[in-house]
Formats: sequence, C-alpha cells, structure tokens
Amino acid sequence: MTTIEARRSAHQFDLGPARALVCRECGNEVPLAAEFACAECFGPLEVGYDFGKITRAEIEAGPRSIWRYRNLLPVPSDVQEHPNTDPGLTRLVKADRLAAALGVRKLWVKDDTGNPTHSFKDRVVAVALAAARQLGFTVLACPSTGNLANAVAAAAARAGWESVVLIPSSLERAKVLTTAVYDGALIAVDGNYDDVNRLATELAADHEDWAFVNVNVRPYYAEGSKTLGYEVAEQLGWRLPQQIVVPVASGSQLTKVDKAFRELGELDLVEPTPYRVFGAQATGCSPVAAAFQAGHDVIQPVKPDTIARSLAIGAPADGPYVLDTVRRTGGSVEHVSDEEVVDAIRLLARTEGIFAETAGGVTVATAKKLIESGQLDPDAETVLLITGDGLKTLDAVEDKIGPRATVPPSSAAVREALGL
Amino acid sequence: MTTIEARRSAHQFDLGPARALVCRECGNEVPLAAEFACAECFGPLEVGYDFGKITRAEIEAGPRSIWRYRNLLPVPSDVQEHPNTDPGLTRLVKADRLAAALGVRKLWVKDDTGNPTHSFKDRVVAVALAAARQLGFTVLACPSTGNLANAVAAAAARAGWESVVLIPSSLERAKVLTTAVYDGALIAVDGNYDDVNRLATELAADHEDWAFVNVNVRPYYAEGSKTLGYEVAEQLGWRLPQQIVVPVASGSQLTKVDKAFRELGELDLVEPTPYRVFGAQATGCSPVAAAFQAGHDVIQPVKPDTIARSLAIGAPADGPYVLDTVRRTGGSVEHVSDEEVVDAIRLLARTEGIFAETAGGVTVATAKKLIESGQLDPDAETVLLITGDGLKTLDAVEDKIGPRATVPPSSAAVREALGL
Repeated sequence: MTTIEARRSAHQFDLGPARALVCRECGNEVPLAAEFACAECFGPLEVGYDFGKITRAEIEAGPRSIWRYRNLLPVPSDVQEHPNTDPGLTRLVKADRLAAALGVRKLWVKDDTGNPTHSFKDRVVAVALAAARQLGFTVLACPSTGNLANAVAAAAARAGWESVVLIPSSLERAKVLTTAVYDGALIAVDGNYDDVNRLATELAADHEDWAFVNVNVRPYYAEGSKTLGYEVAEQLGWRLPQQIVVPVASGSQLTKVDKAFRELGELDLVEPTPYRVFGAQATGCSPVAAAFQAGHDVIQPVKPDTIARSLAIGAPADGPYVLDTVRRTGGSVEHVSDEEVVDAIRLLARTEGIFAETAGGVTVATAKKLIESGQLDPDAETVLLITGDGLKTLDAVEDKIGPRATVPPSSAAVREALGL
Repeated sequence: MTTIEARRSAHQFDLGPARALVCRECGNEVPLAAEFACAECFGPLEVGYDFGKITRAEIEAGPRSIWRYRNLLPVPSDVQEHPNTDPGLTRLVKADRLAAALGVRKLWVKDDTGNPTHSFKDRVVAVALAAARQLGFTVLACPSTGNLANAVAAAAARAGWESVVLIPSSLERAKVLTTAVYDGALIAVDGNYDDVNRLATELAADHEDWAFVNVNVRPYYAEGSKTLGYEVAEQLGWRLPQQIVVPVASGSQLTKVDKAFRELGELDLVEPTPYRVFGAQATGCSPVAAAFQAGHDVIQPVKPDTIARSLAIGAPADGPYVLDTVRRTGGSVEHVSDEEVVDAIRLLARTEGIFAETAGGVTVATAKKLIESGQLDPDAETVLLITGDGLKTLDAVEDKIGPRATVPPSSAAVREALGL
C-alpha cells in the first residue's frame, strides 16, 4: 500500500462539514474520497453535508475571501492557514445605468473579474486545492482552454505544488502566456479540447497523486461555485434576489448557485424567498437552451462555434440538472448571437465601467433578450453573474472599437476631433 | 459668472476632513479649490486636513473598499452613495515562498491587481472623481500611457460622466482597446507622452468643467495613494511594517504611503513604530535613484528607455519629496535592469501565483537587490507593493515563456514530455 493509499483508506482527512459523496441519480452514498462517478449507476457524485449551526455573525467575522464560508464547503476548518489564492468577496455592483438601458428596476452585477486570476475559476480551484491536499494529492492538474488553466497554474504556484496543465496547441498566445508565467508543467497538445479532456481522464487514472480539478476531484471543485451564491445573498444584506442570470458552460455553476440559495434558506441564514434562475448560452453552443425550449430532459451534444470560448462545451455534463433547476424555479435558458455578445460587452463597459469577457457578454445579452421577450420580470430585483475578464478575450472586440480620432499634437486638433 | 464659477466661489462643496490646500514648498494655505500650484512660489499644493476622532472600529465597520477610509480622504462623507468604481481592500498576501527565495524572514505582497481595472490607479481616480464632483467638474480626463487611461475611462463610464483620454498614438493595441471599450472620448495624439501631457495642461486651462485627474485636480487625486498605506496597516492587524518597497514613477505614491503611515500614528490608529521606505526604479528611467545615490537634492531629468513603461517618467514631479522620505526614514532608492525586471516577474509568479506588470517586477527585483546589498534588513518585516497586472504587459515576458512541450494527443507523449 502506498502512502497515499494508506492515508486515503484511513480517512484521516478533514473536509469540514462534508459527510459523504452522494450520487445525483440514484442517491447512493459513498465515503468521502477521490471519486467522481457512482459505482452503482455511473451517475455524478456530489458532496453531501452535515451542517452544524452557522450564524451570519460568524461568517461576517471570517476572512475577506471565500473562506468565510468554510463551514459550508468541503474544506478543513483551518483552510485559511494553508497557502491558497484566497479568492472571492468580489464586488456586487448596483448597476443603475445598465438597469436604465435594459429597462429594469433593480439590477446588480456580480463582478468576478476581481479574483486573483480574474475569473470565477479561482473559486472552484481554491476549493479543489484545499480538498486535494486533504485527500493526499500532491499535483494540481487540469485540461483547459483558458481561465481554468490560469487559475490552476497560479494556485499550484502559490501552494508550492507541481501543476500539470493540458491545453490545445491552437490556444491564443495570450492565454498560453498567462498560464506559462507560473512555471508549472504546461503541455500543449496537438488536438482539440475533446482530445485534451480525454488525455486528462487517462492520466488521472494512471497517476494517483495528480488531482485533475475538473475530473477526479470534480465533486469538491464544483462546490466552489456555491460561494457566488453565498456572496450575492450576504452582499444583498442576507436576502435572496428574485431573479439571477447565470452563464452555462458545463452547467455546474448554475446548479451550485441554486444549491447555495437553498442551503442558506434551510440554515435560516436568509428568508427562503422564491427566486427564478435563468441560464445564458451563446447560440453557437446552446445545447441546454435547445433542450429547454424543446421541452426535452436530455441534452443533444453540439459542436461549438462561438466567440464565447469559455462557455463552448458541446456536451455539458450538468445540462440535465440545469433544466431541472430552471424548470423548478420558473426560469428559462436562452441563447444569443456572437454579435449580441459583443454589443453586450460594450453596453456593460459603457454603462458600468466593467469590462467582461465574452461569457459576461453572453449573460448581459441574454438578460436583455429575456427582458424583451417578457421572460424576465423588469420589476423584480435581478443579479447578473460576470464571471471573467475582458482583458483575456480582447480579440472579440478588437475590430469594433478604437480611438475616436488620431490627431496632431495641438489642442485645437483635439477640440476639433471632439466637435468643440 | 458661470454656474461652475458660482458654485466654486461659494465653496458649497463637502470634501470631508480636508481643510485647505497647503504648499509643500512655502507652507502657504489656500481654500480648497481646483488648484494645483502655489500662487506665491509655484510649489505643488497638497491637501491639509482637520481630522476628527477616528476609530479602528468605525473603519472596520465601513464599506469593503477605500471608502472605509473616507474620513481620512478629501471626499464627502456620503461618498459611497455616488456611483464610482469603489476600488481597494485588495489582498495582502503572506509571501512565504517568495520570502524563502529572497532570503528574508517575513514578507508580504500587497496585490493591487484585484482592483476594478487591475491597477492602483483605480484608487487615485476614484478619489479624483469624488472630489471633482464636489468641485463642480462634469468631465473626467487625463493624459496617459496605460493604467490611468483604463481607470479614468472606466470610472467615468460608471458615473455616467463624459471622459476625455489622451494617449500617444504609438500605444500598444491592447492598452488602446482596454480604454476604448468604455466608450469615452479616446483621442490618439501623434506625439510622445510629453506632447500629450502638454496638451492636457493647455486643455485644462481652457475647459473649466474638465477635471484632468493628474493635472488640475492632482492634489485630490494624489491622496488616493494613501489608501495603500492604510490598508497595509489595517491588514497587518493595525500596525506598521518595518520596511516597505514602493515603485517610483512621479514619486507621488511613495510619499503618500509615508503620509498615510504618519497619519495613522498621529491619530493613534497604530503605534507609531519606525519604518523604512525604499523606492524602486528601472535603470532605464532612474533619475530619483541617481539623485539619491549621488547625494543630490534635485532630480536631473532623463529620457526613459525601459520596458517598465508605467514607471517611465523622466522628470518625476515628486522626486525631491521621495528623496526626503527615504532619507528621513533610513531607506534608499535603487534601480534594476529590464532583464532583472523580467526575472522578478517570473519569480513572483512561480512562488506566489501573482502575475505582476513590469512595475511589479521592478519592485520585486529592487527588493532582491536591496537584500543582496545589505540595505534591506532580512530579519525585518517587509511589504512589497504590486501595483499593476501582468495581463497588460504581456510583451515583456512573451519571448521568455511558453509551454514546456507540444505533443501529439497521447498520454504516453505527455508522460515523456514530463520525463516520467
């Protein structure tokens, strides 16, 4: 028995309130471990909890990061003592100018570009790292096409862990550089994202000390998205919004925000007021929106073709659970064109000074479409999740924007250019 | 009399604890106004205060942004009620791995990349906007070569103000795009930064409603840098570090961090323990380091030639005050080569998972040099200010980093590339 096996078999790990892994399909429970699929039915495993008494005051007195919610996550109670990127507690911006432009009464933007590597992926990776440390892993790994690669390489660097990050060799140079700078093992693979993903699954099976955050420790990793929901509620003054629009890639984030809202209600941390969850996709990769609109329960995979690459998952693992969530809460899933995405990036920037990546454009454009089609109530308080940074997807806007004018160095020329 | 003149002459503005503008050279005091140079001696004006009683508890109960320090800034007490970018309260990271690499005992990195547009400029611009609103301005403007342009355009968009941003037409496309997206009046000028700066001064004189943040409202703008000092002290548990390393462009930031530390001591918010302030410059633009090392009191202007463009001010306005500060506190000013800057960017990234712009590389490389030369005490607690984001200066590292290997899509190939 190796050291890792010995440690794992003795269950000497502390994962805080996490009780077991529970199959989302058949409900089978297994002990906490580095597992991700149910041995009974192959359904996805999710973390189940035994929460103790948790108070608002305790949370408010906690660290200024996601670790203030440590008693709601599968991480040890001393999690903040171990080096990690400590993301979260990003701004919730009251977006009055965007609200006016969209014709809604009360609108908030959750701006997750303030995270350490400027996307919400820092949240899920931080939780994955904390859990992986407990589970006996020593290498942090992922297949990725961008934000996740940045987050994994940065978190591993901070922790002093080795990282293995697999990317398609066609990835834009900027995304390669912002991962490579952290000096982990960044491997470019001559293939597409599906190839890279398949390699990750193979390698995870062969290397017992490699934690592929979104593969073999996925149940823990995914829980990190709950912190978006917790923060929104806390930042609203401990209440739930009436409507929330969430971008859909694998669909995990949307289901976890819903899970967070439900937990807060069950734990008496907020009034369990009704809320509606809406999913946002790009038309070029909208399998969940298509299933929703057709009234189907299963997702028909697609081949992605959209500028919103961070949402371009053609076979979204959590798609069926997204359908469950939006149907249960009275929401829906909509999709928007790439042109609408670019317009929405620009609308958000010019009204609120927030420069979102293409996924953020999908969220704002979808909100606009939902309002115009009457699906989203303009009088109900609404939150939009902006989960990544425009600096990483400059190519999406570069042909559309630039200086108003280029002038010789005289104040008269500047005034003329400004029409003064 | 125009509306603006009438308002200004009636002093109907609320700038919180700010009492007057005080000349740094001759001590002459003038009423708070949109002035920046002393009418008596042409010396620079600085904000003077009458602080009331301020407690730690009050600050801690304040907003999670620089506005928690509103009673220490030239802004109205209801500042957070007006739309602004609300920057600040960025991470103070305990940098044990970088400390080990540099051979020091206790090291912290203040990571200002988490601000809304990812540099410390959001702090100074937010204060400038708040003061400009009180002073009757209606347009936010600046000459800039990068971070400031982003911050001004974003803050104006958020506030619903017009912005006028002047840039040299040779500016890198990425920096142009990340300003243009906010849809203000971005004007490219066929000239260098000196030309752009001169135009700003001319235009400020002609347009009474344009607040050029770093020209005609500079005294207020500059005070925003104090918040870096306040945050470091609060995040250390209300105490001052023993040493701090600050990058030097105009020199304003360094002098304001010192001002913040002194104020906190005078107001009994911290023990007034001794601290040493160190300045960091790139060799290709090191007029302050040169003056310090030659024992001079005046700065000999230089023509900048360095990759650290955000520090490339050849005639730094606050240079003499930097010399005063470092001499008074027992610090020094050092300079480092562009090669050392790139190495330091990579060192910080691989040890702490923080990707800094070139200015951050200057700070880290300077700290290294100060330690190696015995100027910085390796046993004294030290803070490094990282004031901007590596995503904006990718060109500095792009020839040095990349994937470890590019391989065909097989796990055997990945393993071989990793030497396994």
